Amino acid sequence: MSRLPDARADLGLREGYHSAQVDAEVRLNTNESPFPPPAEWREALAAAVGDIAWERYPDRAVGALRAAIADQHGVRPDQVFAANGSNEVLQSLCLAYGGAGRTALTFEPTYALHAHIAHLTGTTVASERRGRDFGLDPGAVADAVRRHDPVLTFLCSPNNPTGTVDDPAVLDAALAAASGLVVVDEAYGQFAERSALARVDDDTPLVVVRTFSKTWSLAALRLGYAIAPAPVVQLLERVALPYHLDACKQVAGRLAVAHEAAMQERVAALVAERARLLAGLAALPVTVWPSQANFVLFRPEGRDGREVWKGLLHRSVLVRDTSSWPGLEGCLRVTVGTPAEDDRFLAALAEVLA
Amino acid sequence: MSRLPDARADLGLREGYHSAQVDAEVRLNTNESPFPPPAEWREALAAAVGDIAWERYPDRAVGALRAAIADQHGVRPDQVFAANGSNEVLQSLCLAYGGAGRTALTFEPTYALHAHIAHLTGTTVASERRGRDFGLDPGAVADAVRRHDPVLTFLCSPNNPTGTVDDPAVLDAALAAASGLVVVDEAYGQFAERSALARVDDDTPLVVVRTFSKTWSLAALRLGYAIAPAPVVQLLERVALPYHLDACKQVAGRLAVAHEAAMQERVAALVAERARLLAGLAALPVTVWPSQANFVLFRPEGRDGREVWKGLLHRSVLVRDTSSWPGLEGCLRVTVGTPAEDDRFLAALAEVLA
Repeated sequence: MSRLPDARADLGLREGYHSAQVDAEVRLNTNESPFPPPAEWREALAAAVGDIAWERYPDRAVGALRAAIADQHGVRPDQVFAANGSNEVLQSLCLAYGGAGRTALTFEPTYALHAHIAHLTGTTVASERRGRDFGLDPGAVADAVRRHDPVLTFLCSPNNPTGTVDDPAVLDAALAAASGLVVVDEAYGQFAERSALARVDDDTPLVVVRTFSKTWSLAALRLGYAIAPAPVVQLLERVALPYHLDACKQVAGRLAVAHEAAMQERVAALVAERARLLAGLAALPVTVWPSQANFVLFRPEGRDGREVWKGLLHRSVLVRDTSSWPGLEGCLRVTVGTPAEDDRFLAALAEVLA
Repeated sequence: MSRLPDARADLGLREGYHSAQVDAEVRLNTNESPFPPPAEWREALAAAVGDIAWERYPDRAVGALRAAIADQHGVRPDQVFAANGSNEVLQSLCLAYGGAGRTALTFEPTYALHAHIAHLTGTTVASERRGRDFGLDPGAVADAVRRHDPVLTFLCSPNNPTGTVDDPAVLDAALAAASGLVVVDEAYGQFAERSALARVDDDTPLVVVRTFSKTWSLAALRLGYAIAPAPVVQLLERVALPYHLDACKQVAGRLAVAHEAAMQERVAALVAERARLLAGLAALPVTVWPSQANFVLFRPEGRDGREVWKGLLHRSVLVRDTSSWPGLEGCLRVTVGTPAEDDRFLAALAEVLA
């Protein structure tokens, strides 16, 4: 007879989040870049990997990588915290500031991992709803922050999965009302017209989170970071597991930053392609929301979202099925791919909706 | 004026753990392998890195790596959980089973991260002391488990930093008394004569944790794993952050397992060298404890441990200063290095103690 103990009662795991991987020829479901990273980066990495002293622990202070990221953003290295994907940044924030008896605030629908990771760390989650067309109203945000008094307020701009970018007044309102930290998840920041990065300094309770997964074409690398006040970074370093970033990842990230121009080219190409994708969707019987990310949220009109998703998959085009998410009833999310991938998606969608 | 929020009150961070890195010519302080991994592994990795689709997320299920580890240990892939170092395995266990109102039990002195990570996750830590010569008595262990009723009981065999291996009766006693999981940290398992691995099955509340850092000469890779009942692995997979293992790490680990013979050779060389190091220490005025790991704990007699540590560092030999740890007063820990490194250490120690 098995006598394994039960998990924590308050884990609050979202069953739906852990879905099985599905195969398809055109994969537009996880907001990956359709472009590989530059060949020069790949060559530089191959050379650098040959020099790693594998039997020794990596640089625990992550010095070179943090310096490179700091240089790129015009901040100090002690304002940079790097981790195994932006998810680990969020987890470190929750471990340092959250926990039992403390609250994290989210504005739904948004990136599911904000609430998920808060739950995982025993942090209470308060969720407010976004307004019309998924926008945030500064007054409503301030009111929610005052009511819940969260130690962590999660904003997401551009917001996943809606593509919405917050007005600067939203951040102002959150910062003015908050006694805790305001965390702006900018995983898709380089695709947008504005960023909260310039607002970070050592005296403002603001943390901006970014990732190498999307704009840097490095989803396989699992590298993210926060730009934050130095005292916050210091605490994140203390809650992070020692030597949490392996040597290969540190060098790969540092070399990526050295190829920023190539990243910007890829981002510009995707922003142009996003306009073409939006125009293509506008010609079909779907509601489309404006997006400043590398994905577009749309709702087939008069059709069941799940059925449309299945119809696309039947044509080997995989998008993200968000149709059962609260607030996103009937909606699907499609990643901006290559022109050929997007054409294939648009043709398949036209067929399904015909 | 800064208005940053305070960290969790119960973080319980050990200041001492986060010490600055110190330079020295002979580094015998972190139990790294003195041997690089095999050249064949390095070449295979270089080739495999060239094939990674960096712009795509890695295999979320970590299928190939888990299958390779499972095959090596004669278990099923669904009994393997891999993570960014064994520390992340421990963190996942604490997130899944620990948290507010639950207790983890440690037997001190032991690996500091057991208590540290439990604290980080809001888990209460109960600490009992090891007996004479750092051994564990089955009756005392059973009694401690019954008194604290921990959801996680941490054993460590060989124990870091004492080198002690538990008698099988210790594990029997812990398993018989526990209503929670018994976790045996075998980071140094391959250096020892016995292991708890054969005791793992789906109905026993036993988790064995291992790492690629020591025996596999891959400290820079940050890869560890648990062999555990399938229902435990399933829960660990659900609390782990999605895509927590990058593509490069997955392939590097899989390729390492394919070079097991080279690992066993390195382990055999270190076990032989350990005997030589112990013999060298026996000729000096120090107390030495038997070790089945790749390190040795010793106490200079009639001398201040910290002063001896400084004297060694002055001769560019770095060992771990454990002299201020409760229960280890005056003790130092030295990693088994190459014969040349160990000779340099022994000569420096003889000088300092002269």
